[in-house]
Amino acid sequence: MTDIPRRRAGGREARHLLRAHSLVQREPFLTRALAPYEVLSDEGLSLLEYNADTILQEVGIEFRGDAEARETLRLGGADVDGERVRFPRGMCRSIIQGSAPRAFTQYSRNPERSVRIGDPNMVFAPSYGSPFVLDLDKGRRYGTIEDFRNFVKLAYASPYLHHSGGTICEPVDLPVNKRHLDMVYSHIRYSDKPFMGSVTHPDRARDTVEMARIVFGTEYLDGHAVVLSLVNANSPLVWDATMVGAARAYAEANQAVLVTPFMLAGAMSPVTTAAACAQTLAEAMAGMTFVQLVRPGAPVVFGSFASSLSMQSGAPTFGTPEPALLLYAVAQLARRLGVPFRSGGNLCASKVPDAQAAYESANTFQPTILAGINFVLHAAGWLEGGLTVGYEKFILDADQCGMAAVFTKGVDLSENAQAVEAILSNGPGQHFLGHPHTLANFETAFYRSEIADNNSYEQWLEGGSLDAAQRANPIWKRMLAEYEAPPIDPGVDEALLEFMARRKASFPDSNV
Amino acid sequence: MTDIPRRRAGGREARHLLRAHSLVQREPFLTRALAPYEVLSDEGLSLLEYNADTILQEVGIEFRGDAEARETLRLGGADVDGERVRFPRGMCRSIIQGSAPRAFTQYSRNPERSVRIGDPNMVFAPSYGSPFVLDLDKGRRYGTIEDFRNFVKLAYASPYLHHSGGTICEPVDLPVNKRHLDMVYSHIRYSDKPFMGSVTHPDRARDTVEMARIVFGTEYLDGHAVVLSLVNANSPLVWDATMVGAARAYAEANQAVLVTPFMLAGAMSPVTTAAACAQTLAEAMAGMTFVQLVRPGAPVVFGSFASSLSMQSGAPTFGTPEPALLLYAVAQLARRLGVPFRSGGNLCASKVPDAQAAYESANTFQPTILAGINFVLHAAGWLEGGLTVGYEKFILDADQCGMAAVFTKGVDLSENAQAVEAILSNGPGQHFLGHPHTLANFETAFYRSEIADNNSYEQWLEGGSLDAAQRANPIWKRMLAEYEAPPIDPGVDEALLEFMARRKASFPDSNV
Repeated sequence: MTDIPRRRAGGREARHLLRAHSLVQREPFLTRALAPYEVLSDEGLSLLEYNADTILQEVGIEFRGDAEARETLRLGGADVDGERVRFPRGMCRSIIQGSAPRAFTQYSRNPERSVRIGDPNMVFAPSYGSPFVLDLDKGRRYGTIEDFRNFVKLAYASPYLHHSGGTICEPVDLPVNKRHLDMVYSHIRYSDKPFMGSVTHPDRARDTVEMARIVFGTEYLDGHAVVLSLVNANSPLVWDATMVGAARAYAEANQAVLVTPFMLAGAMSPVTTAAACAQTLAEAMAGMTFVQLVRPGAPVVFGSFASSLSMQSGAPTFGTPEPALLLYAVAQLARRLGVPFRSGGNLCASKVPDAQAAYESANTFQPTILAGINFVLHAAGWLEGGLTVGYEKFILDADQCGMAAVFTKGVDLSENAQAVEAILSNGPGQHFLGHPHTLANFETAFYRSEIADNNSYEQWLEGGSLDAAQRANPIWKRMLAEYEAPPIDPGVDEALLEFMARRKASFPDSNV
Repeated sequence: MTDIPRRRAGGREARHLLRAHSLVQREPFLTRALAPYEVLSDEGLSLLEYNADTILQEVGIEFRGDAEARETLRLGGADVDGERVRFPRGMCRSIIQGSAPRAFTQYSRNPERSVRIGDPNMVFAPSYGSPFVLDLDKGRRYGTIEDFRNFVKLAYASPYLHHSGGTICEPVDLPVNKRHLDMVYSHIRYSDKPFMGSVTHPDRARDTVEMARIVFGTEYLDGHAVVLSLVNANSPLVWDATMVGAARAYAEANQAVLVTPFMLAGAMSPVTTAAACAQTLAEAMAGMTFVQLVRPGAPVVFGSFASSLSMQSGAPTFGTPEPALLLYAVAQLARRLGVPFRSGGNLCASKVPDAQAAYESANTFQPTILAGINFVLHAAGWLEGGLTVGYEKFILDADQCGMAAVFTKGVDLSENAQAVEAILSNGPGQHFLGHPHTLANFETAFYRSEIADNNSYEQWLEGGSLDAAQRANPIWKRMLAEYEAPPIDPGVDEALLEFMARRKASFPDSNV
């Protein structure tokens, strides 16, 4: 078994590829050697924390349609008035810091793929939640379970993605109330990287947990997080029954919950960055507090999803400076709180994998890397504000993830890397191409992109004047053609299929 | 006079644009509110400094074909042996720190355009040195003086570029030995932003100084840097007579010199980043020492241009992690030395303004911004490893420069930006679109890109499914169509034209 995309190139080329990939391919997640970049002083951070506590105490959060959740919070010290829950200043921080782990391991069915979520680590997962898919051959269309499986396979085959993700695309050819079963099954069957569970109904969260129990065993599950699931606040200042119910189901099973306010500044929060930061902190702390009250010590990840809004059209915009500043600032707030943090990705508003897509993605992904994000959803594939996941975009983004693996290692200061003797022995005016130091190091010296075209203009013309997206097209096709499923215990597979069949038969199809 | 691109939109739209641009348009250069990102500890930096001194002392630098330069260095304390010049440990640092300014002003003929070069400021200048130009209509072709003038006009019209640059493209329709006159004239005549001078021959540097004297006056020039010129080391460890001669001509006139080792790691230096850093520091210190010995106090900028090399094809590669790490590290070395620093830009190897171009550019430009570069050459237009400057790429990159202007201001923590009252008064579940705080702030809240398409997929289809480069195409055409030259004293203009005519008549055309 290997996750190196196999190529037919032989000899020197093949050896080169093996060595070039060897730096990163064996890493189940990244471990940063570089400190995170910070945009706010301790004083600024204290101010935002104070504001978050003011919001929690004075206006509070609505926990809608779930009296049990409000009772949990009341017993934890909150002031409940109808659906409104107010948190005395300091309560949330104290509860979160009292029991939430600073870092945790999400276990995979292949132990070599388990990921450590928390500082100084980074985990890259594919795009999440798109109803549409796009490739250069068939254009934009609704996603299907076949597309879903394809993206699971691509994430599995990529040495630069660490996680199988969740709803990579919506399989709209399956009924809404049953498709979670096929999605969870696909993650388990076609990959052995860790995965995410369903959050669209508490029952579907429980189905996810049941399927995880089939794979890992009931007892194992209670002591090990094997599912990480994304719950979004209904900003501003609302947690709804679906998300709260899903969070409860996972927390009760000691499975990890990613608590993410979804903030289009100007719509879900004030337009200003400092306000969106404080509101994000308030909403996330309320959600994480709930999880800790349901099961102290259950793994939680502080999440932040933020975008600016076009004040002309109301559309979300990506890759602009304001959400980048917010990302850096909220990452600092999460570190001070002492919980793992999720944000960023390769986000863009572009409909196609063009220059807009790449500028915007990089303008989010660079802050993602430098802010020291621990879990990166949407690391590959995202287009059109998340409405579409693209096959070529996935390949282009995964290449960027590979570069991040090298960058985050920082500058090698070993004697070999300093190479003083090489410079002294080479002397003025002599190139280094044939120097023994070059020959000994060149195969691993530089990250090598599969997509970038560094040829001459004339060579590029002869090759058909392909742009980056066109060059990415055959790569995903080759990866799918050469894909081999990781082994799975046939008994487990049978039990999963049996569980799915039984569940599907137990209630009628529905598209709500 | 204004440098806001005029648009025909009236009323609300026009007011919006005015206000949206008002944040940055009046700034002749950026002043960073954010601290630079650092990838090396003090210990690591000391190690690289020690290695640079070892290189300078033990193998030294060749100053080829210029005995006068070697004599200058010998009198300054260097050990000269044939063309080889060795610098005792600490000599260069001591001389540079003894007289080179930590920051300086490059004055423009319009005083409002003068730029401050040094911390905490950033100045963006266009691409430099391309023989080819590219636009979507006419494709790739050799540059002409008309192209050159066009790019001067575009840099002048862009509110996000602070500097007119130098050889934006080579005007290959003019003889090599005379085209510098037309280039310098174009910068002066078609822009009033600061500009760069010729370095292809010491005589051409002196012509540049003469033309600057016509504009600014001989006495003024001796006390004010009005020209900034780029001299490149002939790495490894060589300074050649052309560059040294040009540097001397500018330093004697107290004009600013940008001293840049040009390092394709693996060819001009060892393949490893730490080695390329130390060698860059050694070569740059040798050059800056020479300038300070020619005229103590003459403004110098420490430059670094670095790229990885494809070890398969020998082609330079851009946007990869290794040169980004080098950029951060050498920026730290320059700060410790206490001189302004030039590096980065929107660099890429792509032949066209596609996703590769944008990823690679952003992967260089983000480090450029975060490392706190003071002078950014190649901030707009660069394609194909610098062989081509693109019209559409120029527009796309200038948009990124605009974003940098907002980003570098950091997070606004004013009471208005905190907006606690807005959050408290709005309450759970109510969007902020109509909130008074939103209405009072939305026009300046977010950077607004002219190029990004944030419309719905259906709107984008209706608009012709244009990609980012296609949307940039009409923008540069509109900017050129609406361009109005800044005023110039007719007597000065006449004197410049007369000087050029006299110089051109005084020796035959030549293409060397």
